[in-house]
Amino acid sequence: MAKADTSSIFGSSNEFTLDTVRDALIRQEDTIVFSLIERAKFPLNSPAYIESPSLIHGFRGPLVHFVVRETEAVQAKAGRYVNPEEHPFFPDHLPHPLVPPHKYPRILHPAAASININKDIWHMYFKELLPLFVKAGDDGNYASTAASDMECLQALSRRIHYGKFVAEIKFRDAPKDYEPAIRAKDRDALMKLLTFPDVEEMVRKRVAKKTMTFGQEVTLSDNKTVGEPKVDPSVVSRLYEEWVMPLTKLVQVEYLLRRLD
Amino acid sequence: MAKADTSSIFGSSNEFTLDTVRDALIRQEDTIVFSLIERAKFPLNSPAYIESPSLIHGFRGPLVHFVVRETEAVQAKAGRYVNPEEHPFFPDHLPHPLVPPHKYPRILHPAAASININKDIWHMYFKELLPLFVKAGDDGNYASTAASDMECLQALSRRIHYGKFVAEIKFRDAPKDYEPAIRAKDRDALMKLLTFPDVEEMVRKRVAKKTMTFGQEVTLSDNKTVGEPKVDPSVVSRLYEEWVMPLTKLVQVEYLLRRLD
Repeated sequence: MAKADTSSIFGSSNEFTLDTVRDALIRQEDTIVFSLIERAKFPLNSPAYIESPSLIHGFRGPLVHFVVRETEAVQAKAGRYVNPEEHPFFPDHLPHPLVPPHKYPRILHPAAASININKDIWHMYFKELLPLFVKAGDDGNYASTAASDMECLQALSRRIHYGKFVAEIKFRDAPKDYEPAIRAKDRDALMKLLTFPDVEEMVRKRVAKKTMTFGQEVTLSDNKTVGEPKVDPSVVSRLYEEWVMPLTKLVQVEYLLRRLD
Repeated sequence: MAKADTSSIFGSSNEFTLDTVRDALIRQEDTIVFSLIERAKFPLNSPAYIESPSLIHGFRGPLVHFVVRETEAVQAKAGRYVNPEEHPFFPDHLPHPLVPPHKYPRILHPAAASININKDIWHMYFKELLPLFVKAGDDGNYASTAASDMECLQALSRRIHYGKFVAEIKFRDAPKDYEPAIRAKDRDALMKLLTFPDVEEMVRKRVAKKTMTFGQEVTLSDNKTVGEPKVDPSVVSRLYEEWVMPLTKLVQVEYLLRRLD
């Protein structure tokens, strides 16, 4: 049997502490790196992203919209979005679960449910990140490419919206530190309270090292370095610096602003 | 820009040679290992696999059937199964593509399309493999678990059905070696021609090493080993020895038996 799950605070044996939240964030780094390496198997495949009325009969918009929206609908029916760790990219007209809802322990303030910044994540992923780590070209595998994009988007969305849990545990540990800024609706003060440059530097280095480790070509010989890693480690470091960590803090601020409602 | 894609023989710059097929198989090992590590985040979650008429309104059978079948339908509409490298688990009543079909170079004998051993792969995965690498327990995340199972199944199916391309290139390189056994419909003789114990031993060792490398907890300290890898490397070695390589050879034999039709 494998060791205890650390990717979620809802694992059967996990309590809600700063350590379990931190472990979940660290484990999710692996998921993000794996998903980017898998997406990098395909070239850009830009026809999947082009607004083409003729691409799919009866569906407006790019193929990747179709794949993500319809796959989310399947997963919603199966109950995915009952979990407060999960956030849909197409929340409008999302089907109801067809299964009895699982009772997740209530940890977050109810206002958490109103925070979903997937529009920002979607834009960041397709406009900023994707061109940095896939090669040019078109191999026709648009469906598999879109499914692979969805894996990346879900991993990033989960990680960034974990800001809700980060903010909740920080607030519980020291409510007095946050209450004045919350009552004053002072976003800048909250952002300052939530920013730890040393920790952020460590995270950037760690995700780069993970990308180097997981993206290497493993051979049976002892020569460690065969070719380049499948994704450039500096791109993942930049992903965290420019987008994952700032967007997580944005989620934290949005959550804290609602925390006393 | 990243290095040339090696996961597919249909990459823009890839020719169909023994080397490109071998590179595709090696790259797919990484995908399989990643997918197993990701599935191991969740406990067994057995309610996803139980035949429960009440679990999903209007759908008979286990939740994982619902998720895989419906997600395959979405991907089929987006054109996934036009690619001869891809094989659905629920081929009956699969929707037609809604997109103009991509023209993949014709490499395989047309009879290849009739070979799909996903029923065996499904059975192997759920009955044999899954209990070996996930921990006991139930965290309620059945939808995400089923989506994760689907990633594993698709990676394994793609790898095993690559036997078609392996058999084709081997046949082209030395048709005279295979024709007598094909004409005699001699499965045992074909299996013998396709079996290279030294190569299989090397593959088993390599996938174990990949599992150790990709499943480790990467930290910024130089102490390489922090805890156990997330999936037991010996399980992946056994997966290849007992199932992936034998089933790939089964696909090769089935393909060769139809190669002269």
